[in-house]
Amino acid sequence: MSEQIKAILLISSPDRKGLVYKLTEFIYQNQGNILHAEQHIDPESNYFFMRIEWDLHDFLIPSEKILEALANLKTEYNLKIKLHFLPQPTKTAIFASQNEHCLYDLLLKRKELNLDIRLIISNHEHIKQIAEYFNINFYHFPIFNENKSSVEETQLKLLAENQIELIVLARYMQILSPAFIQNYPHRIINVHHSFLPAFVGANPYQQAYARGVKLIGSTAHYVTTTLDDGPIIQQKVLEVSHKDCLDELKRKGKELEKLVLAEAVKKHTEHKVLVFNNKTVVFD
Amino acid sequence: MSEQIKAILLISSPDRKGLVYKLTEFIYQNQGNILHAEQHIDPESNYFFMRIEWDLHDFLIPSEKILEALANLKTEYNLKIKLHFLPQPTKTAIFASQNEHCLYDLLLKRKELNLDIRLIISNHEHIKQIAEYFNINFYHFPIFNENKSSVEETQLKLLAENQIELIVLARYMQILSPAFIQNYPHRIINVHHSFLPAFVGANPYQQAYARGVKLIGSTAHYVTTTLDDGPIIQQKVLEVSHKDCLDELKRKGKELEKLVLAEAVKKHTEHKVLVFNNKTVVFD
Amino acid sequence: MSEQIKAILLISSPDRKGLVYKLTEFIYQNQGNILHAEQHIDPESNYFFMRIEWDLHDFLIPSEKILEALANLKTEYNLKIKLHFLPQPTKTAIFASQNEHCLYDLLLKRKELNLDIRLIISNHEHIKQIAEYFNINFYHFPIFNENKSSVEETQLKLLAENQIELIVLARYMQILSPAFIQNYPHRIINVHHSFLPAFVGANPYQQAYARGVKLIGSTAHYVTTTLDDGPIIQQKVLEVSHKDCLDELKRKGKELEKLVLAEAVKKHTEHKVLVFNNKTVVFD
Amino acid sequence: MSEQIKAILLISSPDRKGLVYKLTEFIYQNQGNILHAEQHIDPESNYFFMRIEWDLHDFLIPSEKILEALANLKTEYNLKIKLHFLPQPTKTAIFASQNEHCLYDLLLKRKELNLDIRLIISNHEHIKQIAEYFNINFYHFPIFNENKSSVEETQLKLLAENQIELIVLARYMQILSPAFIQNYPHRIINVHHSFLPAFVGANPYQQAYARGVKLIGSTAHYVTTTLDDGPIIQQKVLEVSHKDCLDELKRKGKELEKLVLAEAVKKHTEHKVLVFNNKTVVFD
Repeated sequence: MSEQIKAILLISSPDRKGLVYKLTEFIYQNQGNILHAEQHIDPESNYFFMRIEWDLHDFLIPSEKILEALANLKTEYNLKIKLHFLPQPTKTAIFASQNEHCLYDLLLKRKELNLDIRLIISNHEHIKQIAEYFNINFYHFPIFNENKSSVEETQLKLLAENQIELIVLARYMQILSPAFIQNYPHRIINVHHSFLPAFVGANPYQQAYARGVKLIGSTAHYVTTTLDDGPIIQQKVLEVSHKDCLDELKRKGKELEKLVLAEAVKKHTEHKVLVFNNKTVVFD
Repeated sequence: MSEQIKAILLISSPDRKGLVYKLTEFIYQNQGNILHAEQHIDPESNYFFMRIEWDLHDFLIPSEKILEALANLKTEYNLKIKLHFLPQPTKTAIFASQNEHCLYDLLLKRKELNLDIRLIISNHEHIKQIAEYFNINFYHFPIFNENKSSVEETQLKLLAENQIELIVLARYMQILSPAFIQNYPHRIINVHHSFLPAFVGANPYQQAYARGVKLIGSTAHYVTTTLDDGPIIQQKVLEVSHKDCLDELKRKGKELEKLVLAEAVKKHTEHKVLVFNNKTVVFD
Repeated sequence: MSEQIKAILLISSPDRKGLVYKLTEFIYQNQGNILHAEQHIDPESNYFFMRIEWDLHDFLIPSEKILEALANLKTEYNLKIKLHFLPQPTKTAIFASQNEHCLYDLLLKRKELNLDIRLIISNHEHIKQIAEYFNINFYHFPIFNENKSSVEETQLKLLAENQIELIVLARYMQILSPAFIQNYPHRIINVHHSFLPAFVGANPYQQAYARGVKLIGSTAHYVTTTLDDGPIIQQKVLEVSHKDCLDELKRKGKELEKLVLAEAVKKHTEHKVLVFNNKTVVFD
Repeated sequence: MSEQIKAILLISSPDRKGLVYKLTEFIYQNQGNILHAEQHIDPESNYFFMRIEWDLHDFLIPSEKILEALANLKTEYNLKIKLHFLPQPTKTAIFASQNEHCLYDLLLKRKELNLDIRLIISNHEHIKQIAEYFNINFYHFPIFNENKSSVEETQLKLLAENQIELIVLARYMQILSPAFIQNYPHRIINVHHSFLPAFVGANPYQQAYARGVKLIGSTAHYVTTTLDDGPIIQQKVLEVSHKDCLDELKRKGKELEKLVLAEAVKKHTEHKVLVFNNKTVVFD
């Protein structure tokens, strides 16, 4: 494994005077140089969020002891802390179905998205050739009502064996069970092909076409146990008109889906997303 | 009244071979020069839509006889026909409430929107000074549950006396009764401050804020008897983030509301909008 | 070759009364059903542009005789005429260099862009593996000052042998000679990575970064003998900020380049682009 | 004058370890609560930029002594410091010419832009009625080659008497002399009606029309002594097509000009803009 160069702290806590000071003091007194620092206070809940990224070169505390060194601060200020390192890529599994465009997009961008894609899982066999071209392990799971839960068990085992940290649903058209989802809280990213909360559920382009909207959209969100209701990470739209038939909506929408999903994944692997009250704080 | 220079035909009918030919033949044989011609065929219903704009200079048929001259064609091809003239401005009433930004925007753009604004109606008295500055008749109607229908009667009388062709609801926060609406089918334009069909009804910015969307939107539509469900003419969105509190959503949204409403009104007064199956065809 | 289903006429001429009528009469009297018809009059030059797409089923004139049948009209109205058929794909060669993203994008969209990609030409050898995966003939031409003109000769021969109708420069970083370009007037599409006319020439992202712009852009245009000065087909921009370093501009720009190039190619292969006075008419 | 509630520090300096810590320590030890903190490091120059906004309630140092209290830090770290207070509105003069749209927009938004508009200056007399409606002092200066420098002298006197902190050129069509500009470095905001650096100078819409661009833009920037070359604060574009004649470009462009200018002014009055190397850092 290549040496880690930067550490990132994601902090959330009730707001209190001195929080920024105490956290930057910790970095400073241990000889860290802050590269980026962003904070946010939610005005409704008076909750505090912060992301600090610092240079580990010269830092006095070894990486594996940083959390321990923060223990007192954590207790005193009631902090929720996540610690990440870069450039360590995120161990990722991609789930795909019939449509290939999001899968191809993630594969072609795997370096800039900092993904270590260890698995591609699909209920469609034709995805195999793509996985082979990119030299990634592929698993084909045909899914029927009867085998669904046993398939999920096998998948969970695979994910665990590969130490998967992030699951990306790249237009995966199967609904995951709550049991499955609870294994990866805020670590499954889905792209829904509408500007949520409009057009939840099946066939959103058909719904949009029927309503005669002048915009179609796409939404990337963390998967929760309520369908299409998880915390939104990214959304985009583009203009359509009466000239666009349903197939044209679908064609144009593919661009949105790719952009929205890739941007959400990038924010996640840069450790810039915090979740609070089913909403996200997404730092720049 | 200034002389009319251009005529516009809006046609809809079941599609049949020769429609474009027959309509352009009518213009040509009567010495009209076509300035713009746009057509659309709805692939689901196989319905045909056309807008033809031609120069009336040299046209052999006087304006008031054009519809008569089209009578045979209308019967033969089962056409729905609307005839308009330009640069004749559209006789318009604006309804406003507390918020002034859409009202100001329409007033400042009344020339480029080709509006003959004859009335401003409000349930708020402070709108009066704006009407006075722009030299437009103002009527103040405080509205309570008890007086609602009698107020609407008076308003309808006023609208009729002023030969109003178009009603623009410029963030008017009262719900019009079906009885009122049926007097002006596809001639009342409302702006709803969300990207419909998301966030129908009251407080859409509050709803958007609670859901944690990354886009807010605005929709201009013709008013029908179902709330926020009429044919959409124009929609726009802009990006927001966790940094935007509710007040900031409202502030940013005002720009969208103005843009969307003004653009929809412009399309209407240029006679570029056709309604079909609760959807619009909006020609360029 | 699969049967042609639709014919498309692209017409330009000085504007005259009756043009639309005469052209639609021609279609109608020969039993064609018009599917789309768009026209435009340039107000400065009073020039007329039209695109008519009609169903060839039942059309009385065989495809190969249509131009002949239009000869009188052509003379009388001084028409410039191009005739195309769909769904016939456009025989295309793609030129690429170091960067792969535009090439991959075109390959993955070749069906929806209606491209018959017959050749991939590159001055970089690593492009070969991509061509192989997509099963397309690949030619590697290392280019130096000394061999430039002989390489172009060989390329022209290859293009001719393959009856290439369209050349797409997918971030091809070599400048084509005027002699080469003149063989394919308005049939070479390039993507320049700036919003032209800003940042002509080399290193546009570097230029944009140095100027501190808040938007970066991309432009697809037909190649003419003046660098980055040909008729613009499509442009897009996206927002950037002080947070975006030069590498980030390049990364974000890649999305624009793909979108802009693919959209321009699509318009071209749908035969919706007319060129006049170094500007384009791009029909919807 | 209403009591100040928040203080804002804008800092720039060469980057050094501990900068964020030292600055937040200063706030914390004097009992300030940080509301927003943003920082940026320019990777090319290794320069550090920071904006800290904190609550003055309970802050131990009186407002007028804050700079003094920072003196040691300033020397030690070689800081450039600007100190501002909110909600204190910015004392502003608007310069306008023939076009009224940007002027109206700023006037209607003066509260949300936090402007104390003390003067409207114009070379056109019809602007007077607008100033009167909004109750703002108006000065009419007809400008000819011969009187230009004497007019500027009078204007500078007026600006000084009114303690003007910000000058907004709301489509003001006169070129200010270097002598005038040097009195207000990075305190004169202009809107240029193109996406700079494209179409510098006169008639940018005419230039854009002639080039056949598919986007028109608008740029707000600080005025420097080189025409249209100052640090860019904000830029926006919108799509146009061959259908848009020159007048339509101008009409559509007005929306951009308003949006871009108002957003730039807002960033300035929120004290979120830092200038460095003829570029801006614009904090969120």
